[in-house]
This record gives sequence, C-alpha cells and structure tokens, in this order.
Amino acid sequence: MADLFWPGSERAHDIFTNEAFLAAMVNVEQAWLEASDPGTEVCLVDLVTGDDLASLAADAEADGNPVSGLVALLRRRSGVKGVHRGLTSQDVVDTALVLCLRRALDRITFDVERQARALVRLAAHHRTSVMPARTLTQWAVPTTFGLKAATWLQGLSAATGRLNQCRPLPAQIGGAAGTLAAPAELAGGTEAALSRATDAAQRLGLAVAPPWHTERSILTEHADALVAFADLWGRIGGDVALLSRPEIGELREGAGGSSSTMPGKANPVLSVLLRRHGLTAPGHAATLHVAAAASVDERPDGAWHTEWDALRSLARHSVVAASQAADLLEGLVVNTDRMAERVVVAASTLTAEQRSMGGAGDDASNYLGAADQLITAALERAALVWRDLA
Amino acid sequence: MADLFWPGSERAHDIFTNEAFLAAMVNVEQAWLEASDPGTEVCLVDLVTGDDLASLAADAEADGNPVSGLVALLRRRSGVKGVHRGLTSQDVVDTALVLCLRRALDRITFDVERQARALVRLAAHHRTSVMPARTLTQWAVPTTFGLKAATWLQGLSAATGRLNQCRPLPAQIGGAAGTLAAPAELAGGTEAALSRATDAAQRLGLAVAPPWHTERSILTEHADALVAFADLWGRIGGDVALLSRPEIGELREGAGGSSSTMPGKANPVLSVLLRRHGLTAPGHAATLHVAAAASVDERPDGAWHTEWDALRSLARHSVVAASQAADLLEGLVVNTDRMAERVVVAASTLTAEQRSMGGAGDDASNYLGAADQLITAALERAALVWRDLA
Amino acid sequence: MADLFWPGSERAHDIFTNEAFLAAMVNVEQAWLEASDPGTEVCLVDLVTGDDLASLAADAEADGNPVSGLVALLRRRSGVKGVHRGLTSQDVVDTALVLCLRRALDRITFDVERQARALVRLAAHHRTSVMPARTLTQWAVPTTFGLKAATWLQGLSAATGRLNQCRPLPAQIGGAAGTLAAPAELAGGTEAALSRATDAAQRLGLAVAPPWHTERSILTEHADALVAFADLWGRIGGDVALLSRPEIGELREGAGGSSSTMPGKANPVLSVLLRRHGLTAPGHAATLHVAAAASVDERPDGAWHTEWDALRSLARHSVVAASQAADLLEGLVVNTDRMAERVVVAASTLTAEQRSMGGAGDDASNYLGAADQLITAALERAALVWRDLA
Amino acid sequence: MADLFWPGSERAHDIFTNEAFLAAMVNVEQAWLEASDPGTEVCLVDLVTGDDLASLAADAEADGNPVSGLVALLRRRSGVKGVHRGLTSQDVVDTALVLCLRRALDRITFDVERQARALVRLAAHHRTSVMPARTLTQWAVPTTFGLKAATWLQGLSAATGRLNQCRPLPAQIGGAAGTLAAPAELAGGTEAALSRATDAAQRLGLAVAPPWHTERSILTEHADALVAFADLWGRIGGDVALLSRPEIGELREGAGGSSSTMPGKANPVLSVLLRRHGLTAPGHAATLHVAAAASVDERPDGAWHTEWDALRSLARHSVVAASQAADLLEGLVVNTDRMAERVVVAASTLTAEQRSMGGAGDDASNYLGAADQLITAALERAALVWRDLA
Repeated sequence: MADLFWPGSERAHDIFTNEAFLAAMVNVEQAWLEASDPGTEVCLVDLVTGDDLASLAADAEADGNPVSGLVALLRRRSGVKGVHRGLTSQDVVDTALVLCLRRALDRITFDVERQARALVRLAAHHRTSVMPARTLTQWAVPTTFGLKAATWLQGLSAATGRLNQCRPLPAQIGGAAGTLAAPAELAGGTEAALSRATDAAQRLGLAVAPPWHTERSILTEHADALVAFADLWGRIGGDVALLSRPEIGELREGAGGSSSTMPGKANPVLSVLLRRHGLTAPGHAATLHVAAAASVDERPDGAWHTEWDALRSLARHSVVAASQAADLLEGLVVNTDRMAERVVVAASTLTAEQRSMGGAGDDASNYLGAADQLITAALERAALVWRDLA
Repeated sequence: MADLFWPGSERAHDIFTNEAFLAAMVNVEQAWLEASDPGTEVCLVDLVTGDDLASLAADAEADGNPVSGLVALLRRRSGVKGVHRGLTSQDVVDTALVLCLRRALDRITFDVERQARALVRLAAHHRTSVMPARTLTQWAVPTTFGLKAATWLQGLSAATGRLNQCRPLPAQIGGAAGTLAAPAELAGGTEAALSRATDAAQRLGLAVAPPWHTERSILTEHADALVAFADLWGRIGGDVALLSRPEIGELREGAGGSSSTMPGKANPVLSVLLRRHGLTAPGHAATLHVAAAASVDERPDGAWHTEWDALRSLARHSVVAASQAADLLEGLVVNTDRMAERVVVAASTLTAEQRSMGGAGDDASNYLGAADQLITAALERAALVWRDLA
Repeated sequence: MADLFWPGSERAHDIFTNEAFLAAMVNVEQAWLEASDPGTEVCLVDLVTGDDLASLAADAEADGNPVSGLVALLRRRSGVKGVHRGLTSQDVVDTALVLCLRRALDRITFDVERQARALVRLAAHHRTSVMPARTLTQWAVPTTFGLKAATWLQGLSAATGRLNQCRPLPAQIGGAAGTLAAPAELAGGTEAALSRATDAAQRLGLAVAPPWHTERSILTEHADALVAFADLWGRIGGDVALLSRPEIGELREGAGGSSSTMPGKANPVLSVLLRRHGLTAPGHAATLHVAAAASVDERPDGAWHTEWDALRSLARHSVVAASQAADLLEGLVVNTDRMAERVVVAASTLTAEQRSMGGAGDDASNYLGAADQLITAALERAALVWRDLA
Repeated sequence: MADLFWPGSERAHDIFTNEAFLAAMVNVEQAWLEASDPGTEVCLVDLVTGDDLASLAADAEADGNPVSGLVALLRRRSGVKGVHRGLTSQDVVDTALVLCLRRALDRITFDVERQARALVRLAAHHRTSVMPARTLTQWAVPTTFGLKAATWLQGLSAATGRLNQCRPLPAQIGGAAGTLAAPAELAGGTEAALSRATDAAQRLGLAVAPPWHTERSILTEHADALVAFADLWGRIGGDVALLSRPEIGELREGAGGSSSTMPGKANPVLSVLLRRHGLTAPGHAATLHVAAAASVDERPDGAWHTEWDALRSLARHSVVAASQAADLLEGLVVNTDRMAERVVVAASTLTAEQRSMGGAGDDASNYLGAADQLITAALERAALVWRDLA
C-alpha cells in the first residue's frame, strides 16, 4: 500500500490493509456459516471486493464498526439470511484482526530468521575485529565488533523467544455478550454451540479460547512482543547510524540513500527508518494498554474502537521494519581497517583501566576479557532458537 | 478516504491524504519555482497525479523521503531542470505537512464553532434543569445540566483560545542545512535568497520564519492544541456515554447506533468514537515530542521521519472528531424529566451537605450555589472567543 | 514511604525505596567482594545507612549515577580497596534494580494469589446470579455475575501466566563494556572471571546471563508483564466503579471512602485508585521501551538513566495496586437483589435477541448460553495456574 | 530531596516535595479561613509539620486523597471547627498543586534566563566559527556554531513564548460539585460566595477562574509547555553528546563526569541527564492528557488521582533540567580548532552542493548562506522575549 508518510510501507504489501481486513471479515463469516451448516455450498468470498470498501467504510460509523453493513451486503448478494446469525460484530472484527495479525507475524518471523542468519555470520566473522567500546559516548575499553553483533543477536533471540511464548492467536466467538447465547439458541444447546465455535476457529486455523471481548491481553501480549523487536531494531539502527558518521566510519550500510540536493551523499537510510519505528512503536502499544485498562462492561464504550488503528499501524510498521532490518544486516559493510586504526589512536584510553588494575596495558587486543566466550554463548543460544540456521 | 479501522474517517474527506500531501509538495515546488523565476509560466500542478503515488512511494525508501523521486518526475515532465533548485527535501516535506495541517485546522475551526453554538444553546436553555452532580461516581450535591454544558463550553473556549495563540504556520525554506546557502548561491546573495524564501511562503499563504529543520516546536505546539480538543471531546463523549446508560437515561444521542444482532438497541456511537479519539491522541503527541527531543544535528537521523505519520493521524482524527462532536452536541437529547425524577429520588443525599451546613436542605433546587452566574460567565467568555455566535 | 501524591503508597512499604535501592547496591558490592575473595570477612552491609542517602544522592550527579560515591564511602569505611574492583557502575545499578524488582514481584505474586482466591469464590458463588450484560453502555443480553468474575479471573490467569514466563531475573556483571575484561584481569583469566560472575549472581539469588548493558529486554519484559496486571486491575476498577453508581447499585466496595464535605457518601475508592494505576502504567512502560530502543554503544547516553525512575514508579505502583485489588475483590459486596430486579426491568431488551432467533424470549434466565461452562473453564484454568488455590 | 533514581534531583530543592505539598494545602485552608472570616487570628501554618506526613499519607487512602485527614488534624489542633467549611477536597488538592507548580515555574524561568544569556553569548561569539552541518549523520554543507547556538536559542524563545502565553494559574474553589453551593450557604448568597473565592485566590496570589474540577486544560497547558522545554533541552543534550564524541570533539562539557572504573574518562553527564528528561517528559504529559480526557462527571473516578504524581514528576524533573541546561550552556567548551580542522578534512563534501550549483566550491567559508542574518534574527527575537538580557 502506497504511503508517502511511511517510506518503506510497500514492504508490507497487502498485510493489514483495508482490503485484507475486509477479506478477513468475510472469511470469518464464511467459516461461521460452514460451522453452522457443514453442508453449505455458499461461498461468500467472492461476493465482496475492494470496490465495496468506500460504501462499507461510510456505513461503518452508524454502528461504530463495519460489520452491520458488511452483513447486509453479504446477505443481499448471497441470498442467505443465515449469514452472521449467532455472531456479534465484535466476533467478526476481533477474529479478522487476529487473522491480519497472524499474516504479519508470519512475515516478521521470516525476516527475523534472515536477521538471525546475518547476525550469526557477523558475530562469527568478526570475533577478533577489535574496536573501541563506547560508554556515555566516550571511548571506554576495547571490544570486538563480533561481540557487538552478538549482543544484537542476543536481543533477537530474546525477542523471538518472547514472541514464541505468546499464546496462539484465538478466534473470538462469543455472541452479543460473550455467553454464546445466540449460538446455543441456534445450535440447540450449549455443547453444540461450543462445538460450532471450535469448528469455526479450526476452519480459520486459529486457536480456541473463551470469549475475550473485554479481556484484551491476547492483543497486548502480541503488541508488546512487536515492540520488543522495535526496541531491538531501533537500537541496531542507532548503533549503525552512529558508527556510520564520517568521523567514525566503522560501519556503512550496503546501499546508502542519496540526497535531493547534495551529490555524493550516502545516508544510512535503513538505520534512520528503523530508528523511526523504535520511536513510534511504544506509543501504539501504550494506546493499546490504556484501551485494555478501559475495557469495561461486556463490550467497552470506546476502548475497543481504539485498538484497531493502533494495532494495524503497529503490525504493518513491524513488518516493514523486520524487512528493513534484514536488508540492513545482510548488507552491512564493516570497515575493520577503520576499527583497527581507531584502536591505535585510542590505545592509551582503551587500556587505562587495565593499567589501573596493574596489568600491562600495552595492547588493546589483550584486554578483551570474555568477548570470545560471550560470542560463542550468543551463537549457541541462537542455534537453540532457530534450529536450522546453519 | 475509506478506512475501516477508523469509522468516521470519511468526515476528513481528502484532508491529509496521500493525494493531498503529494499535491501540497507539488505546490511547494511550484511556489519556489515562481519565487525563483517570477516570470515563469511553467505549471507543475497538473504534471503529477494520484496515479503516480505508487511509484513515488516505492521510490521514497531509497532516500528516506519521497522528494527526490518527485523532483525527478517533475523535471522530466516539465522539462525544467530548475525545479527544486535551492531547496532540500526537508523544505518540501515540512512545508507540505504544514499546508495539510492548515487545511485540517480550517475544518476543525469550522466544526468547533458549530460546537460552540450548540453548547451556548444547551447552557442557556438548561439553566434551571436540575440534576444530580456526581463525584467519584456517587451522587453529591445538585447541579444543573446548563452548568454541565457550560463547563464543556468553558473547555471549548480554552482549547480554542489555545489554538488561536499558536504561531501562524510557517513555510520551511532553508536549504540543505538551514543556512539558505544554495538559495543564496542561486539568487546571487543572501538578501535575495531571504527575499525569495519570503516570496515563496507568501505564495503559499504561509508565515515566514527562520528555518526550523531541527527546532520542531511549531509542530508540537499545534499537536498539543489538537490534543487539548481531543481531551475535551473525550470528556464530553464520556459524560454523554455515562448519562446515556439505561439506568441513568438523562441524555441520549440524537441518532443512536444499532447492533448487528440485537434489535432495538440504540448505542451512543458518536460518544464512543469521541472517547476513542481521546484515548488515542495523547500517544501521537507523545511520539511527536519524543521525536522533537531527538532532533539532533541539522537534520535528525530518524526523528524527522517519525513525525509524518503521527501528525497525519492526529490531524485527520481531529478533523473527524471535530465533526462528530458537533453532530453529537447539535443532536443531543436532554431528558429533563429523568433528571427531575432522579433529583427527587436522590433528594436526601443531594441536600445532606446543605443540612450539615445548617441549611434547610429540603429542596435540591435551593442548593445550586452560583450555578447561574457560572453559566453566564461561560457564555460571556464564549462571546469573546467566537465574536459572531449570537 | 509516605507519598501524598499516590494514596496507598504505604502498601509498598520499603520496596523500591531509596533506602532499599541503596541497600541493594551494597549487597551487590558485598556479593562481588565475596565472589572475588571467598574467604573475606569484610561485611559492607552495615557500613552505609539511610543517613548517607543525602550526600550520596548529591554526589550522584557528578558521574550521572550514585555508584562512584558509594564505592568511595565503602572503601573508606571498610578500609578495603578491593571493593567494586572489576565492576562498572552499570553492573551495580542494574543488579540492584533487579533485586528491588524481585522483591516487588514477590509481593505482587502474593497479592495476586489473594485475588485469585477471591475471584474463584465470586465466580463459583455467583454462577446463577443473572444480571444484564452491557455493551456500548446499553443493556444487551443477560449474563451472570459469575461469568463477569470469571472473565476477570481469565485475565488474572493470563497476566500471571505471562509473568511466570518471564525469564528469571539475572545479575548484571560485565565490567566497563560488558566484556568482563577487568574481572578477567583480576581473576587471572576469563574462565575464572565468568566463574566469579556466576558466583556473585548465585550469592544474590539471581540468574546468570550474558551482560545486558544495552540489551534491555529483561527489564521491558517484566515491565510489560506489570502493565498487563495494571490493565486488568484498571478494568476491574472500572467495572466496579460503574456498577457501584447509585442508579445501578449492583456492586459495592466493602468499605467505601468518605468525603471531606458530604456526610454519608461512600465512594468506590479502591476502584478509583486502581483506575488511576491503569491510566498511569502504560506511560512508564512506553518510556522504558523508548529508552531500550535508544540504548546505543556499550552504555547509552541517557537511555539507561531514563529507566530507573520509570521502573521504580511502575514497580511500586504495581505493588500498591496488587494489594488494593486483593482488598477490593475480597471485600466486594454483590447485590444480587438489585441484579435480579434490573433483569426484570430490562427483560424485554435482554430477550429481544432470543426472540429474533425464534426463541421464546420470555425469561432472561433461559438465555444464558454457555455461561456456566465458561465459568467452569475459567476455574479449571485457574486451578492450573495456582496449584494450591482450593 | 535525595533521590538516587534521578541524579540531580537536589537541584529542585523542596519544590513539589511532599512537605511542600502539605504546606501548600495548609496555606489553602488558611486563605479560605481568612477569606471566610477576615478578622480571624487563627494561624494554621505552624500546626502541621513534616512529622505529620506519615500519618496523613496513611490516612489518605481511605478517601482517596489526603484532605480529610488534614482537615481533621487542623480542626483538632486549632480548635476551629470552621476550617475547610465550604470547600471540597479537590479544591484543596488542586489549589495546592497549582501553588507547587507556580514555584517550579518561577525557578524554571530563572534558569531559562540563564540559558538565554549563555546562548546569546555563544551565538554572537561564534558567528564565524565554521563547522560541518550534519544531516542524517553525514556531512552536508558548512554552517557555523553560532547558527547552531542560534537555533537552540530560537527553540528557547519559542518555548518561553509558549510558557508566557499560558493562562495565569488559578485557584480552584468550587465546593463539592463546582457550584459553590456550600460557600454560598455559609456566606449568605452567591455574590458573597464568589467574593470569598476571589478573596481566597488573591490571598494566595493566584488568578480567579470558574471551577475547573473536570476541565483540566489549565494543567495540561502548563504540562505541555514544560514538555516543550524538555524537547529543547533533550535536543541540546543530544547535540552536545554527539559533538563530544572523541572522534568529533567539537564540543565539551565544562566539567565532565568520571567513571567508577576507568581513569581519565570525561563523560558529557549533563547532556546525558538532559536526554533522560527529554525521553521521560512526554510520557508524563501523555498521562495527564489521557486523564483529562477521562475526567467525567463533576469529579472523575480515577482520572483526577492520576494527575498528582505525573504533574509532580514532570515539574520537579523540569526544574532539575532547567538548572542542568543552564550549567551546561554556561560551561560549554567550544573547540573551534577542531571545527576548523574538520572543515578542511570535509571540504570536498561540504562544497559539493555549491559546485553543483555552478559556484566555485573552493572554500567552505564562502558557502554559509544567510547564517549571519539568521543569527542576528535569533538574537533580536531573544531581545524581545527577555527584555533585560544585555
């Protein structure tokens, strides 16, 4: 989806677009129809297209969500009055959000594995590429670029571990107030209703869970996991941007951005765009949390409606950033000569601590502590997280 | 712009859409072209259309912003190499953002005046409509609905006063690093360059200001003013939603929303959507502030890019909410009978304080303090803010 | 710690106070001393007291953190020059933060179990207490208070599950740049250094992890888990506050707050204070995330310093809210008579959907769907989370 | 107040401490007592001290705020039953918050003027100190350090202009529900009640305004102004931290911080602590805005209680940062030699644009555009904001 306000947006293709959301809602209605009437041959999927978006969106305000309009359209075009019977608007919207989110997560997982491969390579390849560690902007003691890449990898393992721990995304099927009263009425009993709900969830490939109309932790849990990645990518972008400064020059993006007026300029564009995501994502998650805390009654009076845009933005931006971070890391150019020269220039500072410990302090390369072991540990940890990296 | 994720989005029409942003950028280039060459007959405006959006957006990532691609397109189609000469990407993006924001503010101002008219009417009409004041959810002492409307009006006057105090929106024209070096080189001197910058700003109807590439207070100042309205509309939405509860029933939206499954339901949809905005807007403003604080160097490495989406969302949502709030207030149904009945039911509680003061405490209508004077004061204040309300 | 700005603060006792933080830092130095010199009989613990706080805090600004001043004091008073040798300031501050956080989590876990017991009791006891479900503020279909309590319990199980999944809190021992160079220098090798780090962590009862000076996910992971509880408690507070409104009156806090001027008023104070936490916590977590994303180099230039106050506030507030929520739920008064009366009053609305499904629609109690099964499921889930609840 | 979690906290002395807040509340009660009984000789001020804090704080939870406990204490110790008669808790808390805030603003204003003086000096003194402008981390075109200082000054003028535009801080006197019913009852009429409210406000040196129990824009307006400063100081801290990197070395703090383990290290500590404030402040303001949007009824059910801690933190941190920024700017060491050397090294890059414009491009000093005029304009603007700077 073209978005001049968020360069790189195309990387998310049709994930979590209006069209995708609409299609997901239709899929939910289809799954419910089939679960309710297993022999049905009705297919709703082709009945609604992107051409309907404008009118559906215009109708959405009347009820506060787009479901009533969509249901009317589906019933009219399919001639099937039973469409949506037993569901409530929130069932459809929430399950569709989950379907969109799942596609985003799949894509992110793919690009995260690309990042992992690149980081494993960088950490292993630069085990002995000595460079100055910097603390509070100043030269501190020596480190290696391999260890820096390893701490990025450590962060990637942690974020991935966290995402993997998230509960499987569930369908939302509860009826008007999360009691499944209408499904039970229609199915002829609560067991049959619960069974239909399970069936519909399975048709969508989603987990089965009790209704969560006002218990929104499944969304915030995933949002927080996305922000954990945003934090990491923002940090990597920050590190690369800093070390790409011409006075430092120890890193460089494989393909830098140009300038509209200054010839020859090579900007660390991917880093810059990753930093953007790191500055933006926490606000969206905070909005989702405030909304979760305001989710009163059996359907909240505004908190629910707050979630959709925040979740969409957070998820799409995350897909974009995952891809950008993979590109950045795969293409990263490490200038080990500059690092080595700087270690010479900074030698006296970098070894001052060692001398104060009574050590020789004559060669920064001899004051690397456990850098090598820490790299190995990070690689081992990664091998557990991504089984088939090697 | 159809957006299923933000019901009501159509109310903002084409304000701050991608198309509008693109057109604004072209307008900036046009104004600069004319300021640089007053006799030019080149018209860039029709050379780029919405059909170019996809390719421009795709190109935008390479440099981190869409200007280089746009400039190439304009130069190619116009055959004029001088397009953009002297400007920098940030000049074009920032000035275009300001042009989009100005349209949003114009629209908001229009709807705010509608709100003011409605509130003046409500406050005046319900001077003596006694109802329970509620504190910490519980009945406290009596008040009038006129005074409640007057405190809403008080908030509207304050937010409007604040928006009116914002500095006029300026163009951004500074060249690569805010020194106007390129304009000076091209114009043959700094005075001529400053004069061109002034000319271009005036052609766009914008104020003239020193370059603000990293001094972002003009944006945060306006963003904060928009959030001040969001706070108010969220509060009004919250009050109406509460007082629309069936157990209370003292207020009702003129046209309530329906349900996809429950017949006869009338939901306070506008209130709900206003609360949504009140929960969302502060996050966008916080993002803009964090970005402002990270605006280092002569163009920041990510903070600038963070602003565009946040500002667009905040501004568009504000336009939507301004219109919704106006509709809500114009259509608000006040059930004075229910208020009066409740005052009878709650009489003993509402007059307990008066009795504890040694007063008669026999009639809530006799314990309204300065409610009447406070209403008058709010009306007088409003008459100063909106000169031609009456 | 007395804090007029956050009523209820005393519930957190000395958790995460300045005194506790100071003591924790001393404990870190002690553990490191013992790990470095297992036979040492030096005890630092009594050498520094709350009386030193003012001067240590005053000195803290010079280096940006309080460690240098503390180390100087400990060396002077103990006469042991080896105090802190091999560590860096961030090792001490981070490990002390973790120790404070652990105490907060222990306390929260205790009160969460109290909440679980209360909710299990409420859900089971009110399986058949029919009340109106409310969606978008309006009566929808019938539900039971047991199911409402069960969805609260569902949220508590989810939040607890999430906290339980957090990685164990690790010590931070990495030396100036996370390479353990100084420990290795002092211990005579990297294996010995890593062994010392492990020993120190174990003495503090903390997990062993690679240095995380700029990989801050261990903190954000725990912060997010705390916000997950805040969301839940805010929601419970919101539900109770709403249902405590005099017009509704279906719930009531066991001991309501009074008013400074209105006799007889009983405010839902605990609910109000829980809502406060729900509105506040997301901002602190967002700050921690923005800081994590800005954690560049081997020690960041401001992001690290941003964390301490945010984490302290979030953790202390969480301890307070955990205790308040437990009290609220243990003392909650459920007015089943009011619920039953309301179901009668609202009968026509509550059964409209059932009638539209072709059902009898004559008795709200016959339209509860799977409420009973959902309660049972929530109780079973809780029995897995808290093994010894029954 | 010693706070290890926020180094530099002592700079705020007793501003917005618990003791100050308590004293402010007593002052409010005193002013009201005198306004209600002009001839009274009762002095409440010495009746309550910091020794009462612990018990008052402990009592505060019962009602959700500390006023009832305080009033009971004042009545008991003074023997005057009329203390607080006519007021409500929120009157006392809000007015006391305003009194604390005013002291913070006074202090900030003082330090902002110090900053203005320092910036005027830097901008004027370094009019011709050529240095590379940096955009997206890379060298762009030349600028001068004088212009960089001028853009900081431009930001300071803007933030100060904004603070000066804030409405004067008003007392809050409205009684239980903002109608002044109790004051009117006691004073014998509404005119007398309004007159008493005016009198009390004037005794406290505060403005008179209609009650604002749920119209919180006076607080958010000031909070936003404080964040505007935080943005600026964060930006200055970021610029100084960057330019203090050893590879760049163009700026240096007058007195750098040291390290607990690395001898000879000089960290840009003030810059780091200013960046901390810039990362933290937006979250507090966002919390205040969300609270403002949730301020329903005549006193909200949690939103009000949310404000106190957020406002206290924001205000105290702002006082600290104002002082730190003044110290930073007064002591800033500008290494013009390094700047000049770098301009030589970077010459080819810095003049590339000029050459592409057809200019000579042989000397960066000849491509400064309107830098000089822009400095002059910033100085003139500052002279209007701070009349007696020179």
